[in-house]
Amino acid sequence: MTETPPLLPLLYEDVVRRALLEDLGRVGDITTDAIVPADRTARAVILARAAGRIAGVEPALHAFRLLDPRCRVDVRLRDGGDAAAGAVVARVEATARAVLAAERTALNLLGHLSGIATATRDVVARLRGLETRVADTRKTTPGLRALEKHAVRAGGGSSHRYGLDDAVLVKDNHVTLAGGIAEAVRRVRGSVGHMVKVEVEVETLSQLDEALAAGAEAVLLDNMDLPTLREAVRRARGRAVTEASGGIRPENVREVAEAGVDLVSLGWLTHSAPALDVALDVEA
Amino acid sequence: MTETPPLLPLLYEDVVRRALLEDLGRVGDITTDAIVPADRTARAVILARAAGRIAGVEPALHAFRLLDPRCRVDVRLRDGGDAAAGAVVARVEATARAVLAAERTALNLLGHLSGIATATRDVVARLRGLETRVADTRKTTPGLRALEKHAVRAGGGSSHRYGLDDAVLVKDNHVTLAGGIAEAVRRVRGSVGHMVKVEVEVETLSQLDEALAAGAEAVLLDNMDLPTLREAVRRARGRAVTEASGGIRPENVREVAEAGVDLVSLGWLTHSAPALDVALDVEA
Amino acid sequence: MTETPPLLPLLYEDVVRRALLEDLGRVGDITTDAIVPADRTARAVILARAAGRIAGVEPALHAFRLLDPRCRVDVRLRDGGDAAAGAVVARVEATARAVLAAERTALNLLGHLSGIATATRDVVARLRGLETRVADTRKTTPGLRALEKHAVRAGGGSSHRYGLDDAVLVKDNHVTLAGGIAEAVRRVRGSVGHMVKVEVEVETLSQLDEALAAGAEAVLLDNMDLPTLREAVRRARGRAVTEASGGIRPENVREVAEAGVDLVSLGWLTHSAPALDVALDVEA
Amino acid sequence: MTETPPLLPLLYEDVVRRALLEDLGRVGDITTDAIVPADRTARAVILARAAGRIAGVEPALHAFRLLDPRCRVDVRLRDGGDAAAGAVVARVEATARAVLAAERTALNLLGHLSGIATATRDVVARLRGLETRVADTRKTTPGLRALEKHAVRAGGGSSHRYGLDDAVLVKDNHVTLAGGIAEAVRRVRGSVGHMVKVEVEVETLSQLDEALAAGAEAVLLDNMDLPTLREAVRRARGRAVTEASGGIRPENVREVAEAGVDLVSLGWLTHSAPALDVALDVEA
Amino acid sequence: MTETPPLLPLLYEDVVRRALLEDLGRVGDITTDAIVPADRTARAVILARAAGRIAGVEPALHAFRLLDPRCRVDVRLRDGGDAAAGAVVARVEATARAVLAAERTALNLLGHLSGIATATRDVVARLRGLETRVADTRKTTPGLRALEKHAVRAGGGSSHRYGLDDAVLVKDNHVTLAGGIAEAVRRVRGSVGHMVKVEVEVETLSQLDEALAAGAEAVLLDNMDLPTLREAVRRARGRAVTEASGGIRPENVREVAEAGVDLVSLGWLTHSAPALDVALDVEA
Amino acid sequence: MTETPPLLPLLYEDVVRRALLEDLGRVGDITTDAIVPADRTARAVILARAAGRIAGVEPALHAFRLLDPRCRVDVRLRDGGDAAAGAVVARVEATARAVLAAERTALNLLGHLSGIATATRDVVARLRGLETRVADTRKTTPGLRALEKHAVRAGGGSSHRYGLDDAVLVKDNHVTLAGGIAEAVRRVRGSVGHMVKVEVEVETLSQLDEALAAGAEAVLLDNMDLPTLREAVRRARGRAVTEASGGIRPENVREVAEAGVDLVSLGWLTHSAPALDVALDVEA
Repeated sequence: MTETPPLLPLLYEDVVRRALLEDLGRVGDITTDAIVPADRTARAVILARAAGRIAGVEPALHAFRLLDPRCRVDVRLRDGGDAAAGAVVARVEATARAVLAAERTALNLLGHLSGIATATRDVVARLRGLETRVADTRKTTPGLRALEKHAVRAGGGSSHRYGLDDAVLVKDNHVTLAGGIAEAVRRVRGSVGHMVKVEVEVETLSQLDEALAAGAEAVLLDNMDLPTLREAVRRARGRAVTEASGGIRPENVREVAEAGVDLVSLGWLTHSAPALDVALDVEA
Repeated sequence: MTETPPLLPLLYEDVVRRALLEDLGRVGDITTDAIVPADRTARAVILARAAGRIAGVEPALHAFRLLDPRCRVDVRLRDGGDAAAGAVVARVEATARAVLAAERTALNLLGHLSGIATATRDVVARLRGLETRVADTRKTTPGLRALEKHAVRAGGGSSHRYGLDDAVLVKDNHVTLAGGIAEAVRRVRGSVGHMVKVEVEVETLSQLDEALAAGAEAVLLDNMDLPTLREAVRRARGRAVTEASGGIRPENVREVAEAGVDLVSLGWLTHSAPALDVALDVEA
Repeated sequence: MTETPPLLPLLYEDVVRRALLEDLGRVGDITTDAIVPADRTARAVILARAAGRIAGVEPALHAFRLLDPRCRVDVRLRDGGDAAAGAVVARVEATARAVLAAERTALNLLGHLSGIATATRDVVARLRGLETRVADTRKTTPGLRALEKHAVRAGGGSSHRYGLDDAVLVKDNHVTLAGGIAEAVRRVRGSVGHMVKVEVEVETLSQLDEALAAGAEAVLLDNMDLPTLREAVRRARGRAVTEASGGIRPENVREVAEAGVDLVSLGWLTHSAPALDVALDVEA
Repeated sequence: MTETPPLLPLLYEDVVRRALLEDLGRVGDITTDAIVPADRTARAVILARAAGRIAGVEPALHAFRLLDPRCRVDVRLRDGGDAAAGAVVARVEATARAVLAAERTALNLLGHLSGIATATRDVVARLRGLETRVADTRKTTPGLRALEKHAVRAGGGSSHRYGLDDAVLVKDNHVTLAGGIAEAVRRVRGSVGHMVKVEVEVETLSQLDEALAAGAEAVLLDNMDLPTLREAVRRARGRAVTEASGGIRPENVREVAEAGVDLVSLGWLTHSAPALDVALDVEA
Repeated sequence: MTETPPLLPLLYEDVVRRALLEDLGRVGDITTDAIVPADRTARAVILARAAGRIAGVEPALHAFRLLDPRCRVDVRLRDGGDAAAGAVVARVEATARAVLAAERTALNLLGHLSGIATATRDVVARLRGLETRVADTRKTTPGLRALEKHAVRAGGGSSHRYGLDDAVLVKDNHVTLAGGIAEAVRRVRGSVGHMVKVEVEVETLSQLDEALAAGAEAVLLDNMDLPTLREAVRRARGRAVTEASGGIRPENVREVAEAGVDLVSLGWLTHSAPALDVALDVEA
Repeated sequence: MTETPPLLPLLYEDVVRRALLEDLGRVGDITTDAIVPADRTARAVILARAAGRIAGVEPALHAFRLLDPRCRVDVRLRDGGDAAAGAVVARVEATARAVLAAERTALNLLGHLSGIATATRDVVARLRGLETRVADTRKTTPGLRALEKHAVRAGGGSSHRYGLDDAVLVKDNHVTLAGGIAEAVRRVRGSVGHMVKVEVEVETLSQLDEALAAGAEAVLLDNMDLPTLREAVRRARGRAVTEASGGIRPENVREVAEAGVDLVSLGWLTHSAPALDVALDVEA
């Protein structure tokens, strides 16, 4: 367990701001405003109610900072850290109104991202002893890709491409439209720069051979049965990075990895992992 | 199964735009741009791979419209409709580049929202024969609250307040800071307008009595055991709407509802429901 | 006279920023830049030239903070406070350039919002001894609704709904399209959540009876003559909140209120109240 | 009465969008959505209930276009046109939901801007037979300056500078900080480009002489009594444009103008003119 | 050489933020994040590698502040200052990650704007002993107009109008559409306010006479040969500001100026001046 | 000469919109509005006054579309096409006001981007017969990176990484902070995903050997003299892509390329290439 380099606040502050404004609406927390004097301060503790891998601490705390620039925070668990059930993630001291108005936004961020980190950690744990890395996909929640991929890294996972523009992935539709894998790769290579890697998605061994011959630097082995997958790994060894994908869940990830692939990628990590249960308590 | 009134595009177009830009990055789909001629058009079908309740069709299709304003769509299942596994949700005809570049954004939206609608539908189904309604919470994914609450409605659920400003929910921290339920409600009533409802969260029957005496229009019965819950419902009948909340999952929702509450609310619907498996196929 | 809980700066800072940028244009205050050295500081006092109720102090001061983050302010009258003619509202110390460049934006905000607060205060004063509250409407200046409704509260008024999404108001067009008040209310009740109040606009006593029978929680009595209004209040007593609206001005507000309604609502407060005369003096 | 060249929609569409979103909130018009089927269309007429000069027709109609891009409009009175009480300003045909959801935003814009145009027209009318023009100021409503100055033009008025960057106005604080009018003007002239006009605010005749000697192209005669004003006009004739300002209201504008100034400027036009009463009727 | 009044940060902070985000992309500086610990600080010096006039120091330093709000800067050369080759412009102390991630953005801003200032300075120097001023145009880089015109001023140049709305320039197309210079000027004068100057572009002496007769306050003498230019200056003297424009480059600027015009304007300053070579060194 | 795949409008429309608004200011083209009737249409031709390679046609035309959605365009030269002096790039038919108000924005975009494309084309032409490709850098104009890199491709060049997040470039500061090239590369490889390429900047042959041994996929040979460069190419052959950079200008690019490197990269292309002279003529 090691810390994961945090994202620059500039990269997520608009996400936090929008999330806060979405909760505050036009006039903010009418319950708290009616009850709590403006000059009252409060101390609160943010906890993990269930055990899990933490991610999103800084974005979550940013919600309090946006409502009270003078708030003070004490971070006890950084992204990539493991929380036992009941563990303190951070303490916050701010105006009572800021604490109560930012609470839900902060928890929604922390719970969602820690849920992804925890799910990733659990998948990574299932591969103990193997070289295979666990990668994310582009199947992320709209608006949260950078934070979700960060959460996957906090869980011990590895990042696949961030979007459509930073790496090439030639898929079946591209092959069909180009008239073959070789031609598709040729067109791509003539178009993209020297810092761009090219991966080709293949479903069969003959497609794999074609991709390797065309110079693919990585191959996405899509939905192959285990014997085929093993043979694919054998053929690609030393020639291209191998990635297994398609229908991989925690339950079957180890048998897929044992086929020898360099990576397994799971959309499930970002589109379906349940949130980690986190809470905020105002201290007496 | 009935259609759910769609949100106005003005309310979600920025969400879709941001999601697209997040995927396109600086220069867009470099794979497709290298392979597919600019003037090529394509027809695609959007499918549910698994059975489920559909939500988010219009936001998903908006992704294609943003990349090709002349794209044509044929919607086969509207929000609130049920898809069998393999069912066609919509057909799209647009430039091939637009189809491929918008695909992932559209599917991420549709899969996420349909996942919530499906989970809601399943919870609602468990309450068949009861009057109890299923409500959402503010435990939503940052940036997507309006769409997620819409998805809950598409699943047959009911909306709790949209944020901190459109209704009052007096919680334990408010009661502590005000020095009692009666005083908290009094302050709120003196502050908010006549169109704002006041709900009070209670954990015990004596708190409930205090809330009812103070004139709460709704009471959130938090984490009560079933006998207490039944007694609470009895006391509140005809005086306030009753909502059970706290730790409710699909597995235990019916026994909670059978205590006679008007509503059960589940954060799980929006923070932990798995995505529905949806896909896009380019047609030959 | 009591202070009104201030809005969170996050809710208005974009309004202030846009107002400043609108005045600064592309290159800012060319007069001041040419004349005043960059390192010169200035102290200024913000005054009410005419007597009135103050609102918008914090948004006004935010204009100085945006141009000089190190500016110091001393607030002498908070929102909800009453200024005599010539009274000091606040003192500001900042770079002379910031003071002069932010002056007009700050005064425009303060004068506009204090004008609304003053008008509201005056209407409220006319109802002394009555229970009737004074409410605002949605007839607000585009872009300023949250601030204007805040100014009404600072004037002693009460907030009607903030927009189209946080409460139901069934109006004549809805009744026509639904085919009757009962059907309109039935549809709404089946659609909105339990935290949403339902008000029905009525013009006649028979419409009122229909609305009450349908379970309206509030009735907007539109443009009724005084005898009808009195009868309407009698019928609605104990069954629904009564609101008189339509053509109410300071001149006739008391006679309307004396009919016994719970609220009178006046669009005039926000669309036609004159600004309060405020000024900034740079101190020697 | 002539038409005023309309502003480009690009210059106000964000104002309209923000105003709409401010009214729609998170989920839009919940009353209408519950009652009116999505496919229902409606025809509506926008009327002036009181007589007045119209301004803001296109921004108002833009609200309908944003909610229903296929809406059809028939404009009967353009900006700068005069409406009798009851006159039709425009007709709109759109989905019933768009008509009802955009109604208030459209009317708020139209009523506010037409109120300014009407007030300006009335002041202009009081100067019939004189050469004096009526000008606006920078005392505008935050966020609406371009539209409000457009409304002044629609009322027959003339635009003063749009902001701090497009013309020079040397005021008392500048003179103090520079150590005299001559020095202030000298610094400004050395700094700004050849397309920028320089106006100097003066309160006395000796200040006027100093400003004229310094080469001011316009002089703002601030709060002068009528004899002084007449003398100031005499001295400035042929040397600088003369503008009277300070405390000018409809009641006294003619006597000020009769002193012979080229312009009178009134903050009142934009900060205190009451809205024109406008309405929307859905047609059977 | 004197300092140029800096622009208010509010006017350029969005430009800097966008430039940074454009470089950081979705997840920031992956090289630095992998190599440099988060708590490491660094000191860096920003240098001019070539001699030149400096502009854009504050916007450049703003890039570091956006990534590390606690960064400390020591400015050694302000805008308008001259750097020898190798001169230190500023020193920065911040987290090492902020220094490395903001470096390129800061240098791109500083190099671009200092390139414009240097080019302007060089043109100004060629006119030593003449009264003619050097002005910019609207031929600026999209998105950077305010900063580029500021750089021209830092180079000793003068600002032409900032855009289409702050001054009138009647060009050939306007004359054609109006049916003559006199009519064009008449229409403009009747439309714009008293603070707006009117310049007319002319290509011949007879057009010049027409413009002067119509009351043009400035004349843009477009692409005239030198004898014509001299005659034009003679005719306009005391009647209008004279500006020569069209095809003026550093090589021929002096002979144009010697014709006696008040201003020469060069689009070249902002659309084609090469960047100044600037660099950042991390100190041991 | 072939066409370059155009960027999606979604990727540049905000750049164009901001550029237009920067020129239009608060109220738009006051000259044109005063002179040209709103209903007048105009036809215009966009020309290259000098010969060059065209880039930015679609963004330029987008300016007209934003002001007149019904404008019609006829594109005669697409990005990547070569214009002779005087060649027609496109024809536009729109309202006369839209044509004149968008003219400068459109030309600024087209001239700037075509200048870059032309400069790139000229450098590429100097390498005729060699395999070496010409690449851009991150030394781009703030806010315009995607468009400028697109222009480089239109000139026949190749894209280096788009920013800090899509590829790794280990530079001297990283090596110093990591304590060696090997360690720097090791840390990077352990951190970034499998789709990210790693390039190392080296200044000496021993650094090169270290980079190759560490597994760098590309090496940036910084400011090497020609004999060293040739030796570096020899050593790297078959092991890593070789890129020469540092002080390369059109004058010396061929001799650098003849050393055998795979790429030469020039910041000059984007930070110092002069604009192409383009113009718009309104047709009679």
